[in-house]
Amino acid sequence: MNEKSLKELLLKVKNGQMTIEDAIQELKVLPFEDLGYAKIDFHRNIRTGYPEVIFCQGKRIEHIVGIVQKMLQRENNILATRATPEVYEAIKEITNDAEYYELARIVVVKRRELEKTKGIILVATGGTADIPIAEEAAVTAEVLGNTVDRLYDVGVAGIHRLLMNSERLMRARVIIAVAGMEGALASVIGGLVDCPVIAVPTSVGYGSNFNGLSALLTMLNSCASGIGVVNIDNGFGAGYLASMINKIGERGQER
Amino acid sequence: MNEKSLKELLLKVKNGQMTIEDAIQELKVLPFEDLGYAKIDFHRNIRTGYPEVIFCQGKRIEHIVGIVQKMLQRENNILATRATPEVYEAIKEITNDAEYYELARIVVVKRRELEKTKGIILVATGGTADIPIAEEAAVTAEVLGNTVDRLYDVGVAGIHRLLMNSERLMRARVIIAVAGMEGALASVIGGLVDCPVIAVPTSVGYGSNFNGLSALLTMLNSCASGIGVVNIDNGFGAGYLASMINKIGERGQER
Amino acid sequence: MNEKSLKELLLKVKNGQMTIEDAIQELKVLPFEDLGYAKIDFHRNIRTGYPEVIFCQGKRIEHIVGIVQKMLQRENNILATRATPEVYEAIKEITNDAEYYELARIVVVKRRELEKTKGIILVATGGTADIPIAEEAAVTAEVLGNTVDRLYDVGVAGIHRLLMNSERLMRARVIIAVAGMEGALASVIGGLVDCPVIAVPTSVGYGSNFNGLSALLTMLNSCASGIGVVNIDNGFGAGYLASMINKIGERGQER
Amino acid sequence: MNEKSLKELLLKVKNGQMTIEDAIQELKVLPFEDLGYAKIDFHRNIRTGYPEVIFCQGKRIEHIVGIVQKMLQRENNILATRATPEVYEAIKEITNDAEYYELARIVVVKRRELEKTKGIILVATGGTADIPIAEEAAVTAEVLGNTVDRLYDVGVAGIHRLLMNSERLMRARVIIAVAGMEGALASVIGGLVDCPVIAVPTSVGYGSNFNGLSALLTMLNSCASGIGVVNIDNGFGAGYLASMINKIGERGQER
Amino acid sequence: MNEKSLKELLLKVKNGQMTIEDAIQELKVLPFEDLGYAKIDFHRNIRTGYPEVIFCQGKRIEHIVGIVQKMLQRENNILATRATPEVYEAIKEITNDAEYYELARIVVVKRRELEKTKGIILVATGGTADIPIAEEAAVTAEVLGNTVDRLYDVGVAGIHRLLMNSERLMRARVIIAVAGMEGALASVIGGLVDCPVIAVPTSVGYGSNFNGLSALLTMLNSCASGIGVVNIDNGFGAGYLASMINKIGERGQER
Amino acid sequence: MNEKSLKELLLKVKNGQMTIEDAIQELKVLPFEDLGYAKIDFHRNIRTGYPEVIFCQGKRIEHIVGIVQKMLQRENNILATRATPEVYEAIKEITNDAEYYELARIVVVKRRELEKTKGIILVATGGTADIPIAEEAAVTAEVLGNTVDRLYDVGVAGIHRLLMNSERLMRARVIIAVAGMEGALASVIGGLVDCPVIAVPTSVGYGSNFNGLSALLTMLNSCASGIGVVNIDNGFGAGYLASMINKIGERGQER
Amino acid sequence: MNEKSLKELLLKVKNGQMTIEDAIQELKVLPFEDLGYAKIDFHRNIRTGYPEVIFCQGKRIEHIVGIVQKMLQRENNILATRATPEVYEAIKEITNDAEYYELARIVVVKRRELEKTKGIILVATGGTADIPIAEEAAVTAEVLGNTVDRLYDVGVAGIHRLLMNSERLMRARVIIAVAGMEGALASVIGGLVDCPVIAVPTSVGYGSNFNGLSALLTMLNSCASGIGVVNIDNGFGAGYLASMINKIGERGQER
Amino acid sequence: MNEKSLKELLLKVKNGQMTIEDAIQELKVLPFEDLGYAKIDFHRNIRTGYPEVIFCQGKRIEHIVGIVQKMLQRENNILATRATPEVYEAIKEITNDAEYYELARIVVVKRRELEKTKGIILVATGGTADIPIAEEAAVTAEVLGNTVDRLYDVGVAGIHRLLMNSERLMRARVIIAVAGMEGALASVIGGLVDCPVIAVPTSVGYGSNFNGLSALLTMLNSCASGIGVVNIDNGFGAGYLASMINKIGERGQER
Repeated sequence: MNEKSLKELLLKVKNGQMTIEDAIQELKVLPFEDLGYAKIDFHRNIRTGYPEVIFCQGKRIEHIVGIVQKMLQRENNILATRATPEVYEAIKEITNDAEYYELARIVVVKRRELEKTKGIILVATGGTADIPIAEEAAVTAEVLGNTVDRLYDVGVAGIHRLLMNSERLMRARVIIAVAGMEGALASVIGGLVDCPVIAVPTSVGYGSNFNGLSALLTMLNSCASGIGVVNIDNGFGAGYLASMINKIGERGQER
Repeated sequence: MNEKSLKELLLKVKNGQMTIEDAIQELKVLPFEDLGYAKIDFHRNIRTGYPEVIFCQGKRIEHIVGIVQKMLQRENNILATRATPEVYEAIKEITNDAEYYELARIVVVKRRELEKTKGIILVATGGTADIPIAEEAAVTAEVLGNTVDRLYDVGVAGIHRLLMNSERLMRARVIIAVAGMEGALASVIGGLVDCPVIAVPTSVGYGSNFNGLSALLTMLNSCASGIGVVNIDNGFGAGYLASMINKIGERGQER
Repeated sequence: MNEKSLKELLLKVKNGQMTIEDAIQELKVLPFEDLGYAKIDFHRNIRTGYPEVIFCQGKRIEHIVGIVQKMLQRENNILATRATPEVYEAIKEITNDAEYYELARIVVVKRRELEKTKGIILVATGGTADIPIAEEAAVTAEVLGNTVDRLYDVGVAGIHRLLMNSERLMRARVIIAVAGMEGALASVIGGLVDCPVIAVPTSVGYGSNFNGLSALLTMLNSCASGIGVVNIDNGFGAGYLASMINKIGERGQER
Repeated sequence: MNEKSLKELLLKVKNGQMTIEDAIQELKVLPFEDLGYAKIDFHRNIRTGYPEVIFCQGKRIEHIVGIVQKMLQRENNILATRATPEVYEAIKEITNDAEYYELARIVVVKRRELEKTKGIILVATGGTADIPIAEEAAVTAEVLGNTVDRLYDVGVAGIHRLLMNSERLMRARVIIAVAGMEGALASVIGGLVDCPVIAVPTSVGYGSNFNGLSALLTMLNSCASGIGVVNIDNGFGAGYLASMINKIGERGQER
Repeated sequence: MNEKSLKELLLKVKNGQMTIEDAIQELKVLPFEDLGYAKIDFHRNIRTGYPEVIFCQGKRIEHIVGIVQKMLQRENNILATRATPEVYEAIKEITNDAEYYELARIVVVKRRELEKTKGIILVATGGTADIPIAEEAAVTAEVLGNTVDRLYDVGVAGIHRLLMNSERLMRARVIIAVAGMEGALASVIGGLVDCPVIAVPTSVGYGSNFNGLSALLTMLNSCASGIGVVNIDNGFGAGYLASMINKIGERGQER
Repeated sequence: MNEKSLKELLLKVKNGQMTIEDAIQELKVLPFEDLGYAKIDFHRNIRTGYPEVIFCQGKRIEHIVGIVQKMLQRENNILATRATPEVYEAIKEITNDAEYYELARIVVVKRRELEKTKGIILVATGGTADIPIAEEAAVTAEVLGNTVDRLYDVGVAGIHRLLMNSERLMRARVIIAVAGMEGALASVIGGLVDCPVIAVPTSVGYGSNFNGLSALLTMLNSCASGIGVVNIDNGFGAGYLASMINKIGERGQER
Repeated sequence: MNEKSLKELLLKVKNGQMTIEDAIQELKVLPFEDLGYAKIDFHRNIRTGYPEVIFCQGKRIEHIVGIVQKMLQRENNILATRATPEVYEAIKEITNDAEYYELARIVVVKRRELEKTKGIILVATGGTADIPIAEEAAVTAEVLGNTVDRLYDVGVAGIHRLLMNSERLMRARVIIAVAGMEGALASVIGGLVDCPVIAVPTSVGYGSNFNGLSALLTMLNSCASGIGVVNIDNGFGAGYLASMINKIGERGQER
Repeated sequence: MNEKSLKELLLKVKNGQMTIEDAIQELKVLPFEDLGYAKIDFHRNIRTGYPEVIFCQGKRIEHIVGIVQKMLQRENNILATRATPEVYEAIKEITNDAEYYELARIVVVKRRELEKTKGIILVATGGTADIPIAEEAAVTAEVLGNTVDRLYDVGVAGIHRLLMNSERLMRARVIIAVAGMEGALASVIGGLVDCPVIAVPTSVGYGSNFNGLSALLTMLNSCASGIGVVNIDNGFGAGYLASMINKIGERGQER
């Protein structure tokens, strides 16, 4: 039930076309539908330009295609993450607008252009092996309309590579720091800049890395302030959160 | 070496008061000092109004007093976190401006007024036992100049308590979700709003809570997007990060 | 907003005392309040005779007293778990009805008698050191109106102690198995009976017991069917769940 | 030794065909056999209509076929869990009554009809990826004669999906909450209803999900009361336990 | 029910004083009682000379005293492990035969002399800090009637200390290797001898020792054959198991 | 240096063919060689009838064949554990005496008959999935000359299956308890018998079994006395240790 | 910016060809570049003879080839670790100097001869399965110009194998101890020698080895002094660190 | 048996005072004693000037005093680590040479002067809370005769503090990096210098620091080469290892 049907109901009550008792019965289930409606009104994936997202990992291809087909009926961009080449092939068959970002494992179906933000999201990685996760973050942020700057392979074992790029770091409104192994990149960046840093631990490494645990703990225990951590290998989540923060700057003081 | 002394050096070179070789020698150590200087110029704890922070836990009282005394020579506000009543007593002896937030375990020495932000940081907790950590976050954010809204004891076991306050949730620019035990609060809030959520797992609980591990993992694995996690019980870190994000809205498009 | 005030609102709309627009505004916040109301109508701690519960651990005594005082204004029984003798002393000062179950660490304030169930909840422990947790479960179940049978110190290292009591096991409608160390009691009981078994791992033990982890994992991995596990040392939770299940039998087919 | 042979023995003693000493010798080993017999009399998998269960994972196909063949000699329904299509093919060759529930990975051999319960078991999932485990629970419960209601993809990240279905939640006698990732579904449901909730953590997720550990800990640490947890991905166990509880309501006060 | 009452029952059946049906009813509960009886007949703590054991940790003193008092009514030796000096004082008040082994934290009440075994149990420790646990093992073994040889502080960091005593190692029938920190002692001894080695990890150490976990894992993963591991700090369990093994040699081929 | 060459050296000293200084030089390196020799004299794998063992897992087939070839030059039986069918095929090509125990994954090359022990090693398993590890233990023990009794699928979820076989349990000199999932079998057996129990946790299970961790912790924390634990899935180690203990009974009081 | 360009800048300032303001602008970015330059001047992989290293695991072959091609333009030796045969084939196509160490999984491209060190690095392993990691360490050390002594399969389960080689141990300047399973080798060697020992835990083992965790913890908790630990299976890291230490002896007191 | 008694034995053989058989018997036990002797000859804590070390934690004061008293009979310096003020007081009573380093928790009894090394060991810490562990390392190194440079509170959150001191880093022969929380200091230093870095994780931190685990994992997974890790809080071990490495440079090419 949305605002329009609510209005109709109240009109019917007013006009005596519906008893108060019947109205109460219908209104009793309204809260939840209305909550759903409320969400439709304000919620993120319905706002103009926000993409609809599908996490492909673990889903069957026919399942994915079905969901995308339903999404295509609406006018939003579509973002399919953790998508294999096979997923891309399947989506391409039902729409000509699908584009595949292989490194990022993302399929984008672009239905409308988004104005790019003035604010910059910088995505940095510790090593080259972290790039797929970084690209997942970067492409997500771009599809959401953000201006993205990539700064890859600037891990702390060669701190000068990072420092040489300090101006780019300073220019960013939000930074996504992607690193595996010991994951110290987030701390070092967090100590250099005064903007929010989103830390993405990756499962890159071996042995006592324990599939990303070491990087995760490093980032959670950072002695630098201003760092928020997402799940291991969660590039999408970092890109999404970074976009939310960046858009605050675009909106300015409106909220 | 700051910009002024760099100018003087170059002037001396220009005027022949210093040989190029000597200048090179001095400039070779400059990078690091200059980096320090650069940080002095732009870095967070030096910007007007930013407080200087001292983490008291594990430090001796005479140590803390010494640091505060040195900080008092500058004109910034001072934020002493994880401060026991004894720490407060000791600080009170060297300055009349010290105020103690007992629940938050924070001592604030206020040297200057800060304009409050238009944007609101909402701090929510799952239970009453999470309040001390929430207060650490809230007081930190306030001392940093933010407008803070507190919404305590709205845990998911009684979801209506949260839903009844959805308007306050919607009004916030950033939300800090503080929860122990199973820590599901962050997910539920993250699913309701479209602003960044900073999740703070607390060590509240027992048994397989493993001192906050269960809440931490819950928050990292949230199926809602837009959530960044900080360390267990790290109220200060959450307040600081929330302030950074909130200030982006205040600054608007300037960066 | 409850059903009555909803009726009033609709009446006002009908009578033209309220515009449809204003009604919509008020109804938009209704869902959540109404949900709260709905819960008031059906929710557990409001049904006649259900006690109100307060988990004391980690709460200050004045805090606990305040909550109890507010609870006393209603006519329900009160159950204060993880209560120290000091908590008991404090509660005793504001009501004469407080009773202390020392082993169970529970204070009960009895305001009304409950009819005892026909169905029996049997509480079994592996050793004598598990008894405090077992008592927390047993007293909780009793305060909720259940008939409770206690069978302590029947751990699997002397399986005959358990087997000698198989008739009592068979007679129960629900069994709570409380055990620390290796926690095998739940599996063995689960293999003997055909009623639901609620398994409570305890932190009793040392070394590789890791504060109850070994018993917890044992119970989760039981090869017997029909076992549900609660948190380590969570006697209250087990008593509560057992009561819910036992009451199903009392209600019979009504739901 | 069963009741019949026990009778014969006693007859022989009575008739003097056996000395008391010989009878004692035979009775000394009887306990265990008799216990087995006793179990035959009361034990779950022999009661009319209870299926016989075989857990296929890790067993060889010829092994499984052998066990099923033996089970077919009795008149009970058969439930083969974690069954691959190959297992199904093999069972189909020895009986025409085999049916395969692919999603649930269950083969059912139906030998007799069961009356459906009046009480409802509701099976809810957080996401679509949790459905196979949920189906394992649902099909298990159905084969055990229960009326099952499925409510899938109502995870807490979109809480309105769950709330919109609160009436179905309220109608259930037992609820099975199946969720991976952060597993908060059980807590939220547990806070809405006043019936027992069986929580099934799934291994759905990645990174710090640690193969279901995060969901498991969430569920064990739930701040809602009335939740019993089973092993990660243990749909069968949840369906079995739910059935036990539901049947209590069917039997009513008989035990 | 014991052999005597079983005889009586059969006599009654024979004499027609009891119907066969009644006899069957009584025999149906017999198994368990009889099992208990059977255990009384053969079980370990009833065999002549075996001590009765009480694990004091976590038990209240009055509780311990009560148990000991009951034990004193029988003629066996008594072994109270994890006993504080207070426990000793309390036991001394009810019997003059109590002796306190402070290092081992054991109280022994000797009621009868045991013949010492020919076979030797050697108890070795890695360091001096492991001695309390070693003494718990050694005293336990001695009270059980074993000849014990102590070889302390022969850790692998100074391998010559161990090798210098290889003859004593070779002479033992069973060896108990007690070690904390990295716990390598068991492996090295296991490589030198061809008798069973019982490995006792201790919680001696700090940091990544994780309260004995490192020594435990070392011992479980030993590349030497013939090693059985007990719980961290479980000196009693090691002494008991060693005694069982040693007694096999005393009994020789009888079983 | 062996005994013979030591004799020659001493003879040369005696005869003046070697100076005392030179002898000292040679003797200084002797310890280690001599230790090796000493081991040859007394050490386990050289005593008559003891097999030589090779752990195949992770080794290349040509590597394994090489080692076996070298072993064939001596007159001992050979035991190749964790052997795939390919390993067996390769060994068969170099000796006709190789026999393959498929379930146990063991290749035995029998070069001499061993007299069977009077004492019995009983190998019990909780389920059928534990049988491969149990067979590894049983075959190992048999190749070492022990009489082995197998008692499979007697897990605690159906305790009567175990109790029905209590006489076989009582007859054994050593028991090997092999169990996965919750691993309670060792505790229950340990509570029934008074002989040493060697507990072998297996990786059988799923979810919070964590690849055998749950069974391992259960066994280490057993409340029954007389249990020694080996590594997860270490059937060989259990068989070897059981044999050592069983042989003590065969030797009787000689050591 | 390097020293030469810095000189030119200062000259321009001196000559008035550049304003002081412009110079300041250029100098502001200099620190980082200059730091990079500084590193170029002193940093390890640029010093004559030091190889350039590429960690191949997880990198695509075309990626690796690209990096090697770029490295070939400089005159250093190249070390490609964790290289599969395919990687070797690909590198061989672009240079004739590539050599493959299969066991060590290393490709070396030798462009210049290095003088071998006088000091010896001894590489020891506990078992044969540890050899690949040991070879990674040994080949790394050799390519870095060190004299390497290999001592394999000297695990502590047969301590004499190690002791027989004590002279080789004593002769080494640094020892690398490589061991899986319980990893006790490092402790035993550390107790025998007085030179630094680099401990490399390997993932060799099964069950509670937890992929190398047991060996790692053993080595970190060693009771012998003078041991530094690297990551599980990190042969390269051990070889590199050992080389650094060995070269200190070559340089002698120069630094 | 030492060299002298070996000579006597050989003399007796030569002179016919002892048969060759008897000599062989005596020589068979010699290896171990001789190894001990050998160690006396070459082993570390006997070389001139090396201190004798006692780890006080967990030892009783009278025990410590006894050991120190015995050590005083020799002419070496004594190092008592993890010493409380009470330990110091007790040692002071038996010798006037005891000195207490409170922060380092070390008592030193200086009996002889050691020449200071030319090579420098630099000890760096991330924060001020790491200083006690750093001092344990520094004082240990100094007592062992090393020149030590302290560089405290240079954590990566303010990278300029570290970079400003790069010359001191470059000058060191060995660096000890002491850090808690995320422990990234070792990686950053390891990336800047080309000397060995000994990394000491500390237990400084809270929450997901898990008592030093996060810093430990960070250091083990460092992407910088040349880092060896010691146990959490093991300052002594780091100082000892650093000294061993530094002395290699002092000795130069002699070994």
